Order: sequence, then C-alpha cells, then structure tokens
Amino acid sequence: MSLLVYGTVALDNVKTPSGSRRDLLGGSAAHFAMSARLFTKVHLTAVIGRDFPKRHIRFLRAKGIDLASLEQGPGKTFRWDGEYKQNDMNTALTLATELGVLVGCDPFVAHQHRNIPHVFLANIDPDMQMGLIHMMRRPRLIGLDSMNLWIAHKRESLLKLMKKVDLFVANDGETRALTQEANLIKAAKLLRKYGPELIVVKKGEHGVVFYSDSFMFAFPAYPVEKVIDPTGAGDTFAGGLMGYLCRAGRLNRSALKQAVIYATTLASFNVEGFGLSRTGRLTLSEVNRRMRAFQSYISFR
Amino acid sequence: MSLLVYGTVALDNVKTPSGSRRDLLGGSAAHFAMSARLFTKVHLTAVIGRDFPKRHIRFLRAKGIDLASLEQGPGKTFRWDGEYKQNDMNTALTLATELGVLVGCDPFVAHQHRNIPHVFLANIDPDMQMGLIHMMRRPRLIGLDSMNLWIAHKRESLLKLMKKVDLFVANDGETRALTQEANLIKAAKLLRKYGPELIVVKKGEHGVVFYSDSFMFAFPAYPVEKVIDPTGAGDTFAGGLMGYLCRAGRLNRSALKQAVIYATTLASFNVEGFGLSRTGRLTLSEVNRRMRAFQSYISFR
Repeated sequence: MSLLVYGTVALDNVKTPSGSRRDLLGGSAAHFAMSARLFTKVHLTAVIGRDFPKRHIRFLRAKGIDLASLEQGPGKTFRWDGEYKQNDMNTALTLATELGVLVGCDPFVAHQHRNIPHVFLANIDPDMQMGLIHMMRRPRLIGLDSMNLWIAHKRESLLKLMKKVDLFVANDGETRALTQEANLIKAAKLLRKYGPELIVVKKGEHGVVFYSDSFMFAFPAYPVEKVIDPTGAGDTFAGGLMGYLCRAGRLNRSALKQAVIYATTLASFNVEGFGLSRTGRLTLSEVNRRMRAFQSYISFR
Repeated sequence: MSLLVYGTVALDNVKTPSGSRRDLLGGSAAHFAMSARLFTKVHLTAVIGRDFPKRHIRFLRAKGIDLASLEQGPGKTFRWDGEYKQNDMNTALTLATELGVLVGCDPFVAHQHRNIPHVFLANIDPDMQMGLIHMMRRPRLIGLDSMNLWIAHKRESLLKLMKKVDLFVANDGETRALTQEANLIKAAKLLRKYGPELIVVKKGEHGVVFYSDSFMFAFPAYPVEKVIDPTGAGDTFAGGLMGYLCRAGRLNRSALKQAVIYATTLASFNVEGFGLSRTGRLTLSEVNRRMRAFQSYISFR
C-alpha cells in the first residue's frame, strides 16, 4: 500500500564538528521519503522554488520516490542554516531560515494521489497540514510530526490538528513544551488525550517511548558513536515507522514494535552522514543486518 | 554467596514536590543493602555516630542485614539535606552536608568478613574505598560507585581505584565529567580503559547502557509516573545488580542482562516512597511481578 508524505523539501547549509556542507537536499518530507521508500511506494508532496537544483530532482526520482505532487512555485526554495556543537549533538542551533516559496503557499496534491490511504504530515505549518488533510478523500492512517516553533506560535492550530490524526510523533522537548509536564510517561498520556491514539516520544540518544490505551513500550537508541550530522534524524525515524506500518498493513502491538525498531535503526544510519548521503544509499538488507544487531543489543535474554 | 557493602549510613532530610521528611535512614550503603538483601546475605560496613537512632538499627537488622561491621564512632552521624524540584526530579540539590563521624575515619571490617568474595564500594571518599579494598583478603568481584564531588576533587584517587575494580557504575553526568566525552557510548569505552571490565552507565528516567569488551546492551527505565523521592535510586540499582550477580554466581551476558533488569526494577520501587520506606517492605515476589511487566514493556516481539 502506498504512502503520501507532505512537508518541506529544502536546501540546507549545515555545520557540525565533522565539517560543513552547503545546498544539501533536506527538509522534513525529503528525509521522511528517503527512509519510507525502503518499505513502500512514497508520493512526496511539497513545494520547491525556481532555484531548486535539477540534480536533487534526479536523485529523488532515482530512489523511486514519486514526485507527481511536487510543485514548483514562484520564488526561492525553503532554506535552513543550522549548526550542531560537539557537546550537544542532540540540539540543532538554527542560524537562519528563509521561507521563500513556502509563504502563503497552499498544499497541492495531484488528483490521482487523493485516495492514498496512508498519510504523513511531516513538519511544516500546522494550518498547511490541516489543509492537506482536507484534500485527502479517505485516509485510513494519518501520522503527524511538528516542532517547537508551532507549539509556541500556533498551539491552537496544532491542537485542532491533533484531533484529526491517529499517530503523533514528537521529541522529548516538544512533548514537554506541548503538555507542560516534565515526566515523559505522564506527558505521553496527556498527548493521547489531545486526540491521537498512538503516541511516539523520541528521546534522541536515549531512545523511544510508545504509548497507547492498550499498551506501552520503550526501546533504547541504537548505539551510534560516529554522529556526523543529525539533521533529519526525526524525519528518517518517522519514515521508517510509517513505511513499515504501511507495508505491514496492521497496527497491533507486534507491528508497532517492529515499526519503532525499524525507525530507530534507520535514524541511526541517518546521523552517520551529511544530509541524505547515508540514507540515500541504504538498502533494506543493510537495514535488516543492523536491525538484527540492535535486537540482540536490546534483548533481555 | 555473601556480599559486603562499604559506604555511608546517613540521616537524610529530604524535600520533594510530594512533601518533606526529616531524619530518614539513608546513605549509599543503607540503600544498597536494602536492595541487595532480596538476593543474598548482605554485610554492611559503615560508621555511624552516637546520635544514630536505635530504631534504624532495629529496622536494618529486621531486614536480615548483618551489622557486625557497622561501627559506632565518636561524633555525629553523617547528614545530608537535599531537595528535588518538580521540573527536574533527576537532579538532587544538596542543601547541606555534615560529615560528622566520617571525618578522618578509616574503614573497619570485622575479622570474619574479610574473606567475603563479593564487595561493593558504594559512594564515599575514594581514599576510604581504597582502604577497604586493602582490608579484604581475596575479593572475587569488586564493584564501585562514586559521585561528581570525588570526580572533581579526588580524580587521581578515583582513577587509581578504578584499576582495582571489576565493575563500575556511574550515572550519565558522572560518566561525562570523568571522561570529558559527551557521547555516552564513547564515554563508556573510555571508562573501560580506566580499568573496570564491566561498565554500567545509568541515565535515570532514560535507562541504562552496559559496556564490556565482549558485548554491549541497553534497556530503558521502568515507566514510573509516581516519583516521590529519588534519593538512593542509584544505590538501590547497584544493590540489585550486585545482589543478583552474587546469587547467580556467573558473569556471562545473560546473567548481566538479568542483573541490570533487576537493578532497574528495584530502582523503580525506590523512587515511589521517601527514603527506604518502599524498598524496606519489598518482597522478591513483588519484584518478580514488576519485572515480568517490565520484560513485556521492553521485549521487541
């Protein structure tokens, strides 16, 4: 079954202790798609500017990602400049953001994509995410990611949106900011009350907590020593999660556990290279190999 | 097989968002012993002052803890005053410390205890921990815990001591302070180079990472919502870890995993009450029940 992702496709300038890169292909939808493509057909919905390099288009197409809903608008592509410091590779410092073509831009979904049953709203303005939901005919599973910017400035829009989605993915900082609760277990329960039945709280190097009414579980992160560039790790995680669930066609406990373990494994690859350089050349058999090592790492026997 | 623990027995004044308590029985060795007693005979080695309440002695004895090496010295019992704030229950704020009888006090071990094969050096001055090692005849397994105070002020003594021990338990802050490395996986490997073969890095609400030359593993923490008083959670963890290893009589991968899961489960009980109130009335069958729930929480199937 196929999967539609809506979010940003960006040009990133990134500086980390390992070096710096300019004009990287980035954005929430691009990172998500590069991960989800390993499990299912991905239709990417986003807007790019006139300046968007053709090589990035060719790269996405070569990875099997459908770009029929990728719109080119007047203006410049969304840009993000960020930096990570040695002593806190979990936190991105935003140096500059240029919205460009994103300003005043309504979501666009090609006609033939409006029946897609699995939808992921990757990080972008929650009003635009809501607009996307209204364009879809009968989504069976809707996932949502957001960020501190929207929690702070568009809280009401985000809360409205949360009532419409099934699965909510947030990191620990976002979870605490949204719920005003320091204890993450209590906070996850509060998120559930906001609407989504499935709550995934990502804690970076500390792993993940999953919460639903019927069960909870938690896993540590895959032990990565070589963190080159964490940009997009959260989107890569979400891509693995939704991609696997879409392929599995089930939402029971065991499918959700497998999905979270795939998501964690994929995120561990993402941080090992700048931008999409590592996930772009991943194969599912490589992922499965690391996943077996990870399962042995977290098994209690 | 029996287990000797050396550390502090203290009187604690604790303030948390749930309330405050005075003259609680506390200290690293007391919390450790209350946890380890569930698995094996525990011999507690510490010094108390003339003011130490008899009810605390009766309580420790009633729990089966051997006090033949508990010495009463001239002066006052070691005292700790601490506070925890709502938004960071992981961090104790020390309001006051009165060393009292600990000043200039050499370790004492009753003659009949010097052959005990399993030894744990709970948090206390590393020079005193080294003194204790020299009193033991042929320890088979020595475990060590320390704290930021000693890492900052007695680094050389601590590094000398680390060469003598087999198992080192530290929290994430201590691990980073000692190694000057932010990545905890790299930091755990550095700790291994300082001497101990078995490295356990505790991350509070985020669980545990274990490192040795032959294997690594990690577990999340048990999901506790009701955190009343975290004082002694680390010592309780260490007590479960060493207690189980002592009972198992093996140090292979599966025994170490079980030991860490028991340790995590015991720490989750400790935080549910002030001082030793919760661990003091624990039974092993109660622990086993929660441990089964925990295993289902962390299992990947």
